[in-house]
Amino acid sequence: MNWFEQQQVDKQKKSSGRDPIIVWKSEMNWFEQHHSMLNDALEAVASREYCTVFSESPLSKAYGESAQAQGIAAVQALCGCDYPLQQPGERTRVATESSPYGVQLGIRYPDCAPESLVAAGVAAQPQWLKIGVEGRMGILLEGLARLNQRSHEIAHAVMLTTGQGANMAFQAGGPHAQERALEALAYAWKAMTDVPGQASWEKPNGKNAPHKLQKHFTIVGRGVGLVVGCSTFPTWNCYPGLFASLATGNATIVKPHPNAVLPAAITVSILRDVIAEQGLDPNILTLSVSTDERTTQALATHAAVTSIDYTGGNEFGRWLYAHAKQARIYAEMAGVNSIIVESTDNYEGMLRNLAFTLSLYSGQMCTTPQNIYVPRTGIATDKGNKTFEQFGQDLAHAVEQLLSDPKTACAVLGAICSSQTLDRLQAAQNVGRVVLRSRFVSHSDFPKAKICTPAIIALEQTDKNIYEKECFGPVTYLIATASADAAVELAEAVSCRCGAITLGVYSTDTVFLSCAIAASERAKVALSINLTQGVYINQSASFSDYHASGANPAANASYTTLAFVADRFVVVQRREHTPT
Amino acid sequence: MNWFEQQQVDKQKKSSGRDPIIVWKSEMNWFEQHHSMLNDALEAVASREYCTVFSESPLSKAYGESAQAQGIAAVQALCGCDYPLQQPGERTRVATESSPYGVQLGIRYPDCAPESLVAAGVAAQPQWLKIGVEGRMGILLEGLARLNQRSHEIAHAVMLTTGQGANMAFQAGGPHAQERALEALAYAWKAMTDVPGQASWEKPNGKNAPHKLQKHFTIVGRGVGLVVGCSTFPTWNCYPGLFASLATGNATIVKPHPNAVLPAAITVSILRDVIAEQGLDPNILTLSVSTDERTTQALATHAAVTSIDYTGGNEFGRWLYAHAKQARIYAEMAGVNSIIVESTDNYEGMLRNLAFTLSLYSGQMCTTPQNIYVPRTGIATDKGNKTFEQFGQDLAHAVEQLLSDPKTACAVLGAICSSQTLDRLQAAQNVGRVVLRSRFVSHSDFPKAKICTPAIIALEQTDKNIYEKECFGPVTYLIATASADAAVELAEAVSCRCGAITLGVYSTDTVFLSCAIAASERAKVALSINLTQGVYINQSASFSDYHASGANPAANASYTTLAFVADRFVVVQRREHTPT
Repeated sequence: MNWFEQQQVDKQKKSSGRDPIIVWKSEMNWFEQHHSMLNDALEAVASREYCTVFSESPLSKAYGESAQAQGIAAVQALCGCDYPLQQPGERTRVATESSPYGVQLGIRYPDCAPESLVAAGVAAQPQWLKIGVEGRMGILLEGLARLNQRSHEIAHAVMLTTGQGANMAFQAGGPHAQERALEALAYAWKAMTDVPGQASWEKPNGKNAPHKLQKHFTIVGRGVGLVVGCSTFPTWNCYPGLFASLATGNATIVKPHPNAVLPAAITVSILRDVIAEQGLDPNILTLSVSTDERTTQALATHAAVTSIDYTGGNEFGRWLYAHAKQARIYAEMAGVNSIIVESTDNYEGMLRNLAFTLSLYSGQMCTTPQNIYVPRTGIATDKGNKTFEQFGQDLAHAVEQLLSDPKTACAVLGAICSSQTLDRLQAAQNVGRVVLRSRFVSHSDFPKAKICTPAIIALEQTDKNIYEKECFGPVTYLIATASADAAVELAEAVSCRCGAITLGVYSTDTVFLSCAIAASERAKVALSINLTQGVYINQSASFSDYHASGANPAANASYTTLAFVADRFVVVQRREHTPT
Repeated sequence: MNWFEQQQVDKQKKSSGRDPIIVWKSEMNWFEQHHSMLNDALEAVASREYCTVFSESPLSKAYGESAQAQGIAAVQALCGCDYPLQQPGERTRVATESSPYGVQLGIRYPDCAPESLVAAGVAAQPQWLKIGVEGRMGILLEGLARLNQRSHEIAHAVMLTTGQGANMAFQAGGPHAQERALEALAYAWKAMTDVPGQASWEKPNGKNAPHKLQKHFTIVGRGVGLVVGCSTFPTWNCYPGLFASLATGNATIVKPHPNAVLPAAITVSILRDVIAEQGLDPNILTLSVSTDERTTQALATHAAVTSIDYTGGNEFGRWLYAHAKQARIYAEMAGVNSIIVESTDNYEGMLRNLAFTLSLYSGQMCTTPQNIYVPRTGIATDKGNKTFEQFGQDLAHAVEQLLSDPKTACAVLGAICSSQTLDRLQAAQNVGRVVLRSRFVSHSDFPKAKICTPAIIALEQTDKNIYEKECFGPVTYLIATASADAAVELAEAVSCRCGAITLGVYSTDTVFLSCAIAASERAKVALSINLTQGVYINQSASFSDYHASGANPAANASYTTLAFVADRFVVVQRREHTPT
């Protein structure tokens, strides 16, 4: 008898299949209270026009005057302490985080037995299903509102654990992540409300009485969702899967990256509190922290785990595909993003835009371009023709200019998240021709922070063995192509082969642009065309931009589409003759 | 360079990435013409109330007076001939079918190289995407209308190849299959129109001019869909995947079971004609026929094949899961359906209903119950208490009564589709206690037809090694359980362990029924309660019943939900500054 069967037998013994008794306190009022938030999100994802639900300004009155100081203080108060989270199966406490800013964190999290977390989640699921779509939605919307109120605390946790600059940590870690979550809730709502609760079915039967059936359709989560986070965006990349999984009726276990636990721990705690306040079992959502890879593996391969949301490297992603065969996997992994430069009517705008794009969070974004393809013969611009070499020099200059002030540099670059990224940066500067060498920058507030400017390396089109590998971090390859058409071909081939979430193109030639558009559709990668102003290729706007297409090696799913939510639950129907 | 890359390079060389030139003849008129059919389907799947679009009566005026004779004649005219279908890469002609009715078919189909079919599909895809959602939908709706007009031909092809009785072959093979296809189109339409074509995005920027972007969202099929059919329901089980795949922009290859090619060949030919009439490349849809399993394997593992719809046995299903890792698999495989009998207030109605259910198409339906659990202590009925033994005798008598007239017997039972089913039937009668022995029935029109009545075998609850295996065909196990509660436990465990598409329960006790409902939700299997009239557990009504939940071993997807269609396409977006 396997685990799943044993659980069922145990459950049968305990309850004889009777429905669990639920003391559910406030019924629909949170759903009603937050209904307009959901409606706004539904309208926004339908139109894909600009929408903001949570203010992205850290200074907004929405957060209160002393919010930032309180948030920072809240994080500081946790340092060196046991994190206040009680979960089943605690084996020990572990402190796993090392801050890229050199701050001592030393927060000790519960290390719980995977078996206990899964069993607790499975036990909590019947209640979670019983409260229905509106019940779950109300709780999760209230949870989002409370997460938003604690954005400064989460932001500081994101900053210290990931190395993001303070502003990005606030925006991407707080309101933007919350909006991605709301987006997932909106799609979950659409997919679940697409199923009617019941139907009266009446089929004519010639001269006889019609056949009449009463049918009920119940939405049932597939089981337990596992959400495995990454080290760079512990909330933004986790929230869509987390909220989609919970909303659709699944018990959910968050397994953050060992170096970025705190943002996930705060998130899980806030949501557990909301759930418990309703008299429901908070173990429907738990946190798994461990330094032992076998813990994640045990969770990922557990028979009760039916979905895995994964953001991270290819190595563990491939392990998941090979071993977690019982689960549907939603994965975002490595990729190589590209920019094609053919011509421009705004040379300086293009250079400024690219300089910021390459510098933002030291290229540690899954949307940062790594390869820039430029025809060997040069490009036409509003400042005259530019050779490949000249373009490289001008781009390097634009980066240096942007980062000339150390304070700005620190704010834009953030810190380097992992020592492997520093190693890759060093190694990259030993290949090709260095157009811009990386330099260290010191931070006035965090003397131990690892901060460095981007490197730009010139390569030939033949250097595939270099530029067709992801070199995550502040490294840009400037690749001289045989022609502009060759640049499009190469961008398409690299996107198909290595995966890509973003593709950029600069051209004033509409025919050339249509080639680039066709290539982007074949490679299934989002295209940004001629960005020269204050929007950057690595930014993905909630409610509007689809993040990843889900159809090249960089990711097999997109934030957020119906496909991201619709297969997380099933419909169980029952039917009987209508009483006459 | 792998196949996919080579194709891309070849394509680039040919077209330099320019959009293909399309001569598309009639533009939207088919979509407009059939718009109300789509609307009816959209309304029906939203309400899940009774809906019929195509008449299920073979004698309906909709088909014309001589339709049946013409359909039969059309099939007869094909026997012993080359099937009129020209496709790329034809290697030879093969006749693969052997009729359960003993009719000589000898129709020779093209055996095409898998590589050629895939390449032709990939080459046809850009056009197919270019005509857009309404373009594809119009063509497929017109295709459905033409399939419907040829229902009698398809029905006769289904009957002769599968062994279904004439009436079932017409209903399930014709209008009901067409309605399942229309249902898939309705969901594909919902999922695709959920994505706006474009959006104007305008983000406030303090006192500066707002950031303005123009965004376009293009729906792109994931690649090539492969639809692998089964030997018993070559249209009903193929159409949902086939229509979902095509509608969402994928090239599609239908690989029917070698013994049931003709219904698929007619279907593919009709749709190819409609596509070609529009000036489009018909190779967007092709038929693969081969006696060599390696052909299916080559298709299933091809890098360009991104989805596989599979109905069939576990052995090849497991092979697909292990080897076709590049594709999303939508699979319906073996299962063990159960009925729990606890009590009834309509004993004779229950027996009549069960007798028909067990006899229909000789139990060769994925929805036919195999295991009937009855408490060893007997059941309460409106005709007094019945012991386990008495119930068995009464059920056997009801079956014999239903099948006493040979003409009715032949119509209800149809013929046995495969010799393995006959072998299983013989073997089953050597285990347990035979309550009803199978007997052969001779058909007045088809003297060589293999027709036999169902066997009923009594087993003990301990005989798991027997009743926890699918014994596809006319075999029913009557299992004596320790108690009524034990019957529910067993039904849940068997559904979880072996997979199940249907579960039935008979009880007058509302508490007992609520236990059965809870068990069905845990096992994720559709429940039919107290069916005693003219609706049977093995019937699944288009637009209303979800066929399979998709969350136990019998199937990983359901006909039809958003999840069945939404992941077959992706959204590729592009964005640029709005011109000022």
